[in-house]
Parts: sequence; C-alpha cells; structure tokens
Amino acid sequence: MRLPLSAWILSCFLTNVSATVVPKNIIFMIGDGMGPAQIAAYRHFKDDPKTPQVETTIFDQLLVGSVSTDPYDKKDEVTDSAAAATALSCGQKTYNGAICFDTQKKPLIPLFERAALKGKSTGVVVTSQINHATPAAFAAAVEERHQYDLIAKQYLDRKVNGKPILDVMLGGGIEYFRDGKDDLLKKFSKLGYQISIDEVSMQLLNNKAPIIGLYAKKGLKPYLDRKDTQITLSSLMDKALARLETNPKGFVMMIEGSQIDWASHDNDILDTVWETEEFAKAVQKASNYVKTHPDTLLLVTADHETGGLSLGANDEYYWNPVPLTNAKYSIPAMVKKFTQGTDIKKLSEDQGLVLSDVQLDKAKLIQPKGEKSSQIFLQSLFDTATNSGWTTHGHTGVDVWLMAKGTRSEDFRGHLNNDEIGKKLIEILE
Amino acid sequence: MRLPLSAWILSCFLTNVSATVVPKNIIFMIGDGMGPAQIAAYRHFKDDPKTPQVETTIFDQLLVGSVSTDPYDKKDEVTDSAAAATALSCGQKTYNGAICFDTQKKPLIPLFERAALKGKSTGVVVTSQINHATPAAFAAAVEERHQYDLIAKQYLDRKVNGKPILDVMLGGGIEYFRDGKDDLLKKFSKLGYQISIDEVSMQLLNNKAPIIGLYAKKGLKPYLDRKDTQITLSSLMDKALARLETNPKGFVMMIEGSQIDWASHDNDILDTVWETEEFAKAVQKASNYVKTHPDTLLLVTADHETGGLSLGANDEYYWNPVPLTNAKYSIPAMVKKFTQGTDIKKLSEDQGLVLSDVQLDKAKLIQPKGEKSSQIFLQSLFDTATNSGWTTHGHTGVDVWLMAKGTRSEDFRGHLNNDEIGKKLIEILE
Repeated sequence: MRLPLSAWILSCFLTNVSATVVPKNIIFMIGDGMGPAQIAAYRHFKDDPKTPQVETTIFDQLLVGSVSTDPYDKKDEVTDSAAAATALSCGQKTYNGAICFDTQKKPLIPLFERAALKGKSTGVVVTSQINHATPAAFAAAVEERHQYDLIAKQYLDRKVNGKPILDVMLGGGIEYFRDGKDDLLKKFSKLGYQISIDEVSMQLLNNKAPIIGLYAKKGLKPYLDRKDTQITLSSLMDKALARLETNPKGFVMMIEGSQIDWASHDNDILDTVWETEEFAKAVQKASNYVKTHPDTLLLVTADHETGGLSLGANDEYYWNPVPLTNAKYSIPAMVKKFTQGTDIKKLSEDQGLVLSDVQLDKAKLIQPKGEKSSQIFLQSLFDTATNSGWTTHGHTGVDVWLMAKGTRSEDFRGHLNNDEIGKKLIEILE
Repeated sequence: MRLPLSAWILSCFLTNVSATVVPKNIIFMIGDGMGPAQIAAYRHFKDDPKTPQVETTIFDQLLVGSVSTDPYDKKDEVTDSAAAATALSCGQKTYNGAICFDTQKKPLIPLFERAALKGKSTGVVVTSQINHATPAAFAAAVEERHQYDLIAKQYLDRKVNGKPILDVMLGGGIEYFRDGKDDLLKKFSKLGYQISIDEVSMQLLNNKAPIIGLYAKKGLKPYLDRKDTQITLSSLMDKALARLETNPKGFVMMIEGSQIDWASHDNDILDTVWETEEFAKAVQKASNYVKTHPDTLLLVTADHETGGLSLGANDEYYWNPVPLTNAKYSIPAMVKKFTQGTDIKKLSEDQGLVLSDVQLDKAKLIQPKGEKSSQIFLQSLFDTATNSGWTTHGHTGVDVWLMAKGTRSEDFRGHLNNDEIGKKLIEILE
C-alpha cells in the first residue's frame, strides 16, 4: 500500500493492458545446444576472479522459465535441432529431422511466412550455413533437414506478396547458393538483394535493399578464429537490424549461436564457452535494443542441450574456467597446426595451457596419428584443466532455459513445452 | 483493457499490497542433489505413455526461476550440501563443510532460530538423519558438518524462550540421539516432546506436544523399500503440519528429499527417480496446503546437482524411463539379495528388467566379487536399459530450479544466487 491512487490506477492499466498489446518486433534468439550447464559454464568463464561472488550474465538477467524439448518421435526420445526448431516456429512437435513437417508428413507454415503475410520484415542471422536446420524451420518446409539445396531454393522461391519471405539472410553457406548448378545468389541479386561474401562488402551493406550475406562455404569459422573480424553475430545483427527496422510494420528475426552445439557435439569445452560468448554478446545487444525499443519482444532459448556437459567430473568438486580464457585460437585451428607438425610446447604456450610431462610425452605419441586422435587428445587437455565431464557426442533431454524481455515477455514465465512457445508466438503475430 | 474499473482497482490493490504482506507460514522444500536432469528424468518417469505429450509435473507447475549454487571456497568451486544449506538458511555463502559458519569461521544465526525468536514454530522433516547437513543448517551452527553429535546436542541445548528451536524433528538418526553416551531422546522427553521410533508410535503422534521421531539408525531406507509404510515424507509431513499449525503465530518448516543426492552419488538412476517421486508427492501435498492456506509461502529448490546425470548418453538420442517403473525394491536391496546368492534371473524378473545373454553371463562372474562390484554392475543394468549418463560420483556446478507458490512467491522470480534466497527469507521473517 505504498502507491498513491493515481499511480495504482496507472500500474493497473499497464498490467491489464499488456496482455492485449502486441509487440511491433520480435527478436528470437536460439543458442543451439546451450543447456543449463553451458550457461553455468559461461557464467564462471566471465567471472571476475577479484570478487568472491560469481557475477551474473545477460542470461541470468533475462531468465523467466524453462522449456522441455522432447520431440514426437517413436524412435527417439531426445530431440534434434530440426524437430525443436519446428516446435518453436510452427507450434507443433514433430519427428526428428522434420523442417516444418508434422508427424503425418504434411507441411506446416513457418513462423516467418506468417510474419511476412502480416507485412512484417523477417531475417535470420546465424553462424552455421543459413539453410541449416534451425534457420530453415523459420522460413522453409521440407521433409528432411539435409535437403539443403531444396531449403536454399525455397528461400528464393517461397514468396509472399511476390517477394522471398526472408528480407535478410546472414551467415554461412555459399556452397548451397553459388557453387551448385543453380547460382541462387545471381537470382537474389536480380530480385534486388544486396549480395555480400566478404568482410569488405559486409561493411558496405546498407538499409536500402534486402540482404543475403554468406561468409563461408558452410558454417562460419569458430568464433575464437573470427572474433577480431567484422563477421560476428553482433556485427551481422547490426546490419540486419538496420535493414529490418526500416519497415513501419515491424520485423521478426531469428538469431542463432549455431556452433555452441557443434563444439559440444565434439565435447570441446574451449569452443563451447567461446561460442556462448559470441551468442551472449548478441543477446546483450538485443537486450539493449529492447530497452530503447520497448515495443519489441525478445525471447532467448535453446533447442536442446548437447554433450551431457557437467561442471565438475570424476568425483572432484571443482570446475576451473581459467584455462579457457587465454586461448588464442579454436580447437579445430589447434588440431590443424598440431597435425601439420607444430610443436606441442608452442601450441600449449599459445593456448595458455600448462602441460605435465606425461601430457607432453603423450602428445608426441599422438601427433603422427592424424586428425581425429589429435582432436580428441587436444580437447582432453582442456577437459582435464577445467574438470569438465561429457556423457555423449549427441544431444540430451534436459530442459533448457527461457529468457525474455519487452512487450508480452510476461506471457513466457514458468515452465513451457517448446511447442507452446511457437503457439504463443503465432497467437501474438495473428 | 478487458477489466471493468472496479476490478482494475481491486487487482491493483492486490498487486501492490502483496509486496508488503508477510506470509504467516513458510514451507521450504529441498530436493538434495535434484538438478535439472533429475527433474526432467522424473517428468519422463511419470509420463503417460498413452498420450504423445509428456505431461507436466508439480515441479513444472511451480517453476519460477533458477539458482546458482557456488560456495565461497578457495579449494572447491562446486558446493557441498552444508555450504549450500547455509546460504539458503543464513543468506551468506561460505566454505564447503560449514553449517552456519562464515568464511571467517564465525557462527551465523540459523533461519529457524530467527523464526523461533518471532514466536513461530519450526520443524524439519527429512529422509536422512535429522542432524545431516541440510536440516542442521536450519537449526544449528558448527564448524564442520560431520560434528553430528554436536549438532544433535545443539538441537536440545540451543534454546529460544527456554525451548529447543525445533518443535518438530522427523527423519532418521537414532544412533546420534539414543545410542551415544548421552540419551538425548530421554532429555527431549523430559522437555515434553513426544518420542516416536517406529510406525506404530508414529501413527499415534498428536498435535498437543512437540515431536521427535527417528525411524532409522542413520538415513531412512530407500523409498522403494519404504513406500508402502507410514514412514514417508508425505505422512511425516502430515504429522508435522498438524503440530506446527497449532501456533497462531505461524510456522516455518524445512522438508528435504535427502536421498535423491545419495542415489545420484551412487550413479543409481533407479533410486534417483524413486526418491524424486517421494519428494514430488510431498511437494504436491505442500502445494495443496498453500491452496487452502494462501497465507503460506512455499519454496522448492535443490542445494546442487549430483552425479552429472544426463538423459541420453553414448551418442544415442533416447532416454527410456520404462525400466524404472516396475522395480519392486531399491538397488541397495537388490545388491543385498544378489551378494547373498539370489539368482540374477529371479532378481531381474522382480525388477522388471529384460537381460541379454551377455549380461546374464557377466552377472555370474560378478556375483562372487562382493558388494561394491555387484552394486556397480546392477546399477549399470538400469543405465543401459534407460540410456542414462553420469560424469561423477560427486556434485556438479549446474544451476538448480526454483519453484514457489503463495504469499510473496513473486519475490523469487528469475535467476537468484542461493544466498539471495536466504537473504529474502530473513527479510520476510524480520
């Protein structure tokens, strides 16, 4: 009973009105494979060692609930990215591998097609190829996720009001758009799209025309090998936002930290936290955007956990993020140098690792054995240094976090099923 | 803008008043070791296989946020139960092993001492010994958690207004209260406590006097071996509530599913889900209580995750709860029968397991090897059948869930540090 009556009535008005207000823009961010352990690992990674408290991250600040991720799949109880993204986009659970196809193998309507029909602009910004499962499920519909060429073609051919659904596409995947029989980039260019395939042309992108920017044959390089360039999720997001917000009817965009999943599939703790860092920076940028544009809804979640990661393993009660902070390059880059003959002492120095004599001796035995053995060995150095545990190279069924901010964010509080998120977004759009 | 003005003003009144209203009662429930994977495992375990959807559990229905659990400990980055319970009770992070002692080794005030000073009744209901780390941190203060005799003595000697802090103590631990030099049970009896040490005397407990009920030398039997008796968390909770709610000034109680942790320490998925089942039933009962007593605050959380459990492992995309549903007895009971010579075919039949010839042959090799080998082998049968993964026999640093209902539950939304929960509870009490 601290507020005066007028403030009460105002607060009351805002509370009750908010449920019927519709956000002008929606920014949907997905940390692929970013389970609760990946989020906790990132918090420790960012911790200021000079204070006793572990500081909160942008994820903590936005947390509103959790999401269960199970697909409708007789064979598999644990979801893949396609089924999860379909649930988030179409509001329906389906079989693993499906991109906006239901369990009866009937196509569903991708979320961004609904948005385009409402006159909104749409965009995807990812670090995988732009036709990978997660972005695909927002703008295409195919029976099986690996139909990459078909997805790329749908990006061009599936039109709303005579225009492709996606106004902005930024990420990797040149291989599917130029190197095939069909030069899709040329066709996008004919439709008025700005084409960008390198850092220079990326910096020249403007907000006057739609955009397709592809900066790798398939996925982008790992963030650790790319963070000093302009080809980062945050920089690409700036370009996307500049274009998308020219539409007075608003926009819907999906931003994915695609390679958290890939690093966790490899059980590579170094790149898992650095890919999460790239994603977190983009989330911080989106959160700032919502602060200045409160008519926007920001949702952040994951499609599933990958790797069965644990902070602490092997009966030891610690997890040490410090060995992850000083690395100069990714595990894939380290593997390349190692198999090409770079001495382990030089490599460990570059990466800020202190190795035991036993590890140095083992390195000499492993070095001639080729890429896979080297990768497993080099990753294990970081597992040992941090005390990280993994149970699988696949996905697991633990729930993921849901974070939200802005208009209608209160609709997403508590525990939800992934298809309920899709349903709520459809309801908000329509 | 759907509500009429009068309803607005009422809703406004309720919204703004709630922040200053103080709950009469607090029910604080801790699933020891119950991380996000244990909660997801329980959801699948309870799933109705006849519906495609995985039904929500009481945990899902109450979810409001998550909690980070790190201690202030130079040696350990991952918490133990003592440091975590101290944070939850005293609002201060501390070193592993501390029961209401700070990092300077100075004693802190346990939460229930504060409650008793306010004239409230207090109680603990647990499935471990009642002087185990978690309950101890609500009513005692010792430098090191294994000072069990000292904790038991403090339960008797630490008095507020001439009476022990705890009005109700239900769980295990006779060894520390009767079998020592000092017969503490006799002394509690002299102070007017009802003493109960078996099922018959438990059923005779009434609400006229304080209660100490101890039903095992240390921890209670696993729930699977106890679920058809009256010595369950739910039944004990009924007895506790009946006594505690006689106080017109209200009560504060702590209920712990203590052995979720123990089963996960053993990497025993069978007992992990069944101990969670016992805890969930108690949470359901507490939730129903809050419905009929809305002046109560219910909080449910965990102190940490145990085991690095994952649903799905070994690169396979499934987790199958069905083999856990038909078991007749716990892994410890199964190990006992096995080492005493019961045939593996009989055992697997009792437990609803279908074994391969390879597993049957292996059983014959393991059977003479004693308890530890048998335990590891028998647990592994359930890991294989369910496809569960584990990374440690210790704790891990992933965040845990926070669930809440009732008066002031909105104060606990979002991501919190475990000491913030303690601070909020102290603020509410004072």
